This record gives sequence, C-alpha cells and structure tokens, in this order.
Amino acid sequence: MNNFIYDIPVRVYFGENQLCHLGEELSKYGKRVLLTYGGGSIKKSGLYDAVTKEIKNAGLELYELSGIAPNPRIDSVRDGARMCKEHNIDVLLAVGGGSTLDATKWMAAGACVEHDPWDFFSKWAPVEKALPVVTILTLAATGSEMDSGGVISNPETQDKIGRLADPLLPKASFLDPTLTYSVSPYQTACGAADMMSHIMEVYFNMEPDLYMLDCFMEGMMKTIIKYAPIAMQEPDNYEARANLMWTSSWAINGFVNGGKQQAWSCHPMEHELSAIYDITHGLGLAILTPRWMKYCLDETTVSKYVQFGVNVFGIDANLEPMDIAKQSIEKLSAFFFDTLGLDNTFTKVGIEEKNFPVMAKKACGDGVLPGFKPLAQQDIEKIFAMCR
Amino acid sequence: MNNFIYDIPVRVYFGENQLCHLGEELSKYGKRVLLTYGGGSIKKSGLYDAVTKEIKNAGLELYELSGIAPNPRIDSVRDGARMCKEHNIDVLLAVGGGSTLDATKWMAAGACVEHDPWDFFSKWAPVEKALPVVTILTLAATGSEMDSGGVISNPETQDKIGRLADPLLPKASFLDPTLTYSVSPYQTACGAADMMSHIMEVYFNMEPDLYMLDCFMEGMMKTIIKYAPIAMQEPDNYEARANLMWTSSWAINGFVNGGKQQAWSCHPMEHELSAIYDITHGLGLAILTPRWMKYCLDETTVSKYVQFGVNVFGIDANLEPMDIAKQSIEKLSAFFFDTLGLDNTFTKVGIEEKNFPVMAKKACGDGVLPGFKPLAQQDIEKIFAMCR
Repeated sequence: MNNFIYDIPVRVYFGENQLCHLGEELSKYGKRVLLTYGGGSIKKSGLYDAVTKEIKNAGLELYELSGIAPNPRIDSVRDGARMCKEHNIDVLLAVGGGSTLDATKWMAAGACVEHDPWDFFSKWAPVEKALPVVTILTLAATGSEMDSGGVISNPETQDKIGRLADPLLPKASFLDPTLTYSVSPYQTACGAADMMSHIMEVYFNMEPDLYMLDCFMEGMMKTIIKYAPIAMQEPDNYEARANLMWTSSWAINGFVNGGKQQAWSCHPMEHELSAIYDITHGLGLAILTPRWMKYCLDETTVSKYVQFGVNVFGIDANLEPMDIAKQSIEKLSAFFFDTLGLDNTFTKVGIEEKNFPVMAKKACGDGVLPGFKPLAQQDIEKIFAMCR
Repeated sequence: MNNFIYDIPVRVYFGENQLCHLGEELSKYGKRVLLTYGGGSIKKSGLYDAVTKEIKNAGLELYELSGIAPNPRIDSVRDGARMCKEHNIDVLLAVGGGSTLDATKWMAAGACVEHDPWDFFSKWAPVEKALPVVTILTLAATGSEMDSGGVISNPETQDKIGRLADPLLPKASFLDPTLTYSVSPYQTACGAADMMSHIMEVYFNMEPDLYMLDCFMEGMMKTIIKYAPIAMQEPDNYEARANLMWTSSWAINGFVNGGKQQAWSCHPMEHELSAIYDITHGLGLAILTPRWMKYCLDETTVSKYVQFGVNVFGIDANLEPMDIAKQSIEKLSAFFFDTLGLDNTFTKVGIEEKNFPVMAKKACGDGVLPGFKPLAQQDIEKIFAMCR
C-alpha cells in the first residue's frame, strides 16, 4: 500500500433547493461572475432563470458563455479564458454536465496565463493557478464536480486529452438530484457506464490493497447497477437520482485511489475513439470494458475477477475461479448491453477498423499503456478487434 | 433523504514517513507551535524526538503541554487555552489518540475567548473561531483527526459532554499506521468497538436512505471485523493497522451521515458511564450496544437488523427476519466479547446498579433520548439492567 495525501476541500451542497446558498458562495470570491453552460436546455428547464436570479439578488455582475459542446473543444476554452481576462472575472460558475465543467475549469486556468490554453495539453505547461470555479451539476457521470481534472478535445489535431491539476478543483459544487430528472434514459445509461469505468479502472489492480476501499468501490458499483435502470424507467425517482449523483462524485474524486499509483486502461483507449468519432464517452467505455476484461484475464489476474464477480454480482463463490471470472464479464456485458440497452459493438456506433492502428498507437503514447495489464499497440488493436 | 452540506477540508498525510511534511504544514499557520500530548509513551517510542526535530528544522518555536489524560478533563483544556494566550501561539499540534486531540481542539477554541472553556459545554457558549490544529494520530478509534468534535469531562460535576463545531476541524492530520503498532491488544479492541459504534449509530436508522452510504458503512464494519483481530495478534501488521486507521476517520467524519438528522443512542448512554467510572469509552460501548440492539428490536425495526446481519455478518438471507435479527446481535456480541475479548458486563468493569437512575436521567437530558428508537429514562435503566 502506497502513501498518499488526501485533500478534497470541495464544499458540496447536496439536495433540492440549495441554490439559496449560491449567492453567498460566489460572493466569497468576488463580484464578477462568468456563467458557462452548453445548449439551451438550462433555459428550457428554468434553471437558467433560477441561477441568474440568485446571482443578481446577491448583487453580482453576470457575464455569460454558452454553447459548450459535449467532448468540449479547446476553442471553447480559449473563448472563456479570453472573456475572463477581458471582463476581469472573479469566479466562474459552470452549469451543466462534465463537458461544461471540464471546459470551465480549463478556462479558469487559461485566464491566469498568457499562452494558448492548448499548451496545457500539447506542451504540458504548468498549471500554477486558476480562477475559482463553482459548479451546478445537471448530469451524473464524469465526477468533474469534485475532482481536479478536465478532458479537452482538439478537432484539428484529433487529440482528446485529460489532465489533473490541483488549482482546478472546484471550490463548491451544487448537487441537486432533481436537476437530473430531465436526463434521457440513453444519457443516464452512458453516465452509469462512465461511473462504472471510473471505479473499475482503480478496482482492477493487483497491488496490495486497502480492503476498506475495495468494499466502498464494490458498494458504489452495486449502487450503479441497482439505480441506473430505475432512473431510466422512472426519471424523477429521487432516491435513484440521488444515489447515482453522489456516486458520480465519489467514484473519481480520488478517495478510492488510496495511494495506488496504477494508470488507467479503458479511459485512454476510449479517448482515442471519441477524439475521432465524437461518440459519447460512456458508450465507448461500455463497449470497451468487457473486452478489455476478457483480454486481461489469466491465471495471474483471475483473483480480482473473482472478488468482483462474487462481491458485486453475487456469483457463487464456490465455483471455479476461472468460471466466476468469465461469468463476471458476462454479467457486466448484460448490464451494459441488455439492462442499460447500450450498443455493444464498434460497428453499431460507426467506428471503423481502418482507424484501429492509429487510435491504438495514440492510446499507448507510442510506448506501452501501463495499468492493470500493460498494453502495447498490438494488444490495444486486438482489444479493438474484439469490439467490432 | 435530507439535504446536507458536505465540507471536510482536512488534509490527510497517510502512510509511513510523512512527517517530512510537518514543518511545511505547521508553517502555513505561523511560527509558534504548542505541542500537546498525553503521557510519556511518545517519548519512549521516539515520536517525540522525530516531531520536535521537524519543528526545529522548520525554524518554529516550540511550546509544550503534556499530561492529557484519557477521558480528557476540562482542566487540561483550561491549561492549554491559557498557554496559547500567554505565548501567543499560532498553531496547536496534538500528538496522540482521541483524548489528546479532543482536548487540544477545545484548547484552540478556548484560546479565542475570554470566558472559562467549560462554558462551551455548560452554557453552550458559541464557538466562533479556534486556533488552527494539526494532529498526529497514534490510536485509531475516535475519528477526532478528521471531525470537528471533542468530548470533555468535568470530574467536579461528573459531566462528560461532546460537542461539534466547525472551527475545531483539524487543518491537517498525519495518519501513520506504524505509529499504532505499539497500541496494546486491549486498546486495539476498545478502538475497534468505538469505530463499530460510530458506524452503527448512523447505520441503525429507519429513514429513507442513501443505499450507497449503507454499502460504505457495511464495508467499514466488515473492515473492522476483519482487521481488529489481526492487529491484536500481529501488532505490526501494516495492512491491518492501515485499514483500521483510515476506517477510524471515515466512520465519523460526517460523510456517512448523508443528511440524516437522527441523534445517536449508545454514545450518550456511554458518556454517563465513563463520566462516573472513567472506563475506556470503547469498552462501555461494546457492553451497551448489543443490549441496546436487543431492546430496540421489534417488527417495526427488524428490517434494519436483517440488512445488518446479512450484509455485515453473512447470515443466510432466507431465514426468518426475526431470526436473522437475533443472530446478528449474537454475532456482534461474539465479536466484541469472544473475538476482541472485551468484558461483557457492567459488573466486570465495576459499574454499580445504584448509579443506574442518575446515569439514565442524565443520558436522556431529563427528557427523551431521540435516535433509532426514542429512549426515556426508564428505557435506559432497563438497557443498563440488561448489561449487569
């Protein structure tokens, strides 16, 4: 077990009608607020009106940047950073899902430097500071509301790159489960797959472990398996939306890592898919994850699959380990593709075989993708081939 | 499910050899450090030397207050508050278990007021601020390293009162599992019972719930049941000590509450025992908890016992609910009294029947102790009688 430093000073307002705290929270950081959001859905839902009313009632100055797309682009980040500088913004308020939050965090960092924000990704320019960010979450999936990371796409270079940096951690996040009532069954399913993957990327690990954290991860996976189908069928089921929302934050806020140093596997592979094809991140992860599990299963890794199968899916612990492992992959596939109804092949979502080599090469950074099992380009190509 | 605000900005340095960060951490708050500790054990272990060396290397001024007793007394708090004022202390560094940490937090609050620190308890004087506190934990039990509370005894009035206040939250805590290698099997057992109780006080609850948090609580209880006996038999088992230590923090840092408003039951009862008899807190809780469970079990509460029995102790879910419930109490008793070897009756620890009425009366504050089941004085006397 490795040493670690735990430090997640995000203030979370959880529940309905917590927006009454928004003005006081933003006012901690200054007067001039840049409100960022995606399309028009927050106007239709009435959230835009509620938020701007709180901002005005608190006597704050409101600036706006809308149109942040899914798989957010570096151009949005550039626009936001420029607006922050032009208007001398004190605090950014991101209202939306992970894409809006991710883009806003990098605007906040971009506002504090002179160089092009893409340098944070292409040149790994240091992230020494960022303007304060507050978030209002409308989609439970990426965990951006409680972590220090953000993933940005550059269509020109066909890159999609994620990066963590302490200054990007939101100061506060508003998590109101009722704001996710309008999330479609399909997006709910994709969010569930994304959360499952966040946990599995850490859970599948052969390092000596913190049993306590494994239990917590198993609990979160059971939570997703229990509530995602309920939220799809009953969009306004508060208990389901609340459990999914709080799980989205804890799946990836760093707590479950407990000092593990191991890199992730499916996320780097998926980023290459959505960099080219602009598919929903969670969908790409759902297609990849069971194949990745199958590819990595052998006598040296089987014990982790057994733990997963028995503790998450309730498979009989008395069966042969390899049988339990295979059943666990089948159960996960059934969850993604039957229960959640997600497409189960690359072909169905339009990902073409001709791009396998270039995507695989980028995923492993021209070397080896470390992680649960180290994967070289030819390994990744084989996993892609299993997804056809 | 109630709304809640989650906000735990404690920085935790977890693992061995993290004291290299101590100087930088203390320096954030100023130059003048009050080091607080209990008896001489930290001198014997070498921890005192290691800590003072880091303080001196960082160029800080060191003041000391030792002799903080288990079930810490208001007199220690008064002494510490006075020293903070006299020496213009900038930051307090508590090195020890929950008693030292609790007392130090209240010194930090006492340093900021003119009145007697006991007024915080007798008159519920407001706690508007406190000096910053950093902790180095040497005993996994109370969770004081990551919460905003502290329990203080007043032998003159035979009161033992706990109180939470945001300004008491430590700025940083150093959790090094190797520092608990020297904790005796008996104290390890008492710590385990204390942690179990912290979780059960929240877990036993008939409110609609966050399933995710129930899973986490079940995972922590399983962690304690798995590792406490190992730590008793192999005091220097890092995995066991690490899992217990991180569980001690998360059992009571507020995360598992998830908006539940319900009051605790066994802790208020136990405080009255140790206010008079000065027994170890965890031991008192171990004796009380199974009897309290038995007393509260009926048709309206049985479902929670079933969940507990099946998910924590692996009792067959197909049995009759009431049988599962009774078995779960037996399993918990066997864990406390057989596995951990704790005394199982008041008689064995010297608690006399003559004091039952006065202790029961104080426990329910002359009214009713709210909680899982509301308990009036006569209910508490009956539970005490079951402990004889």
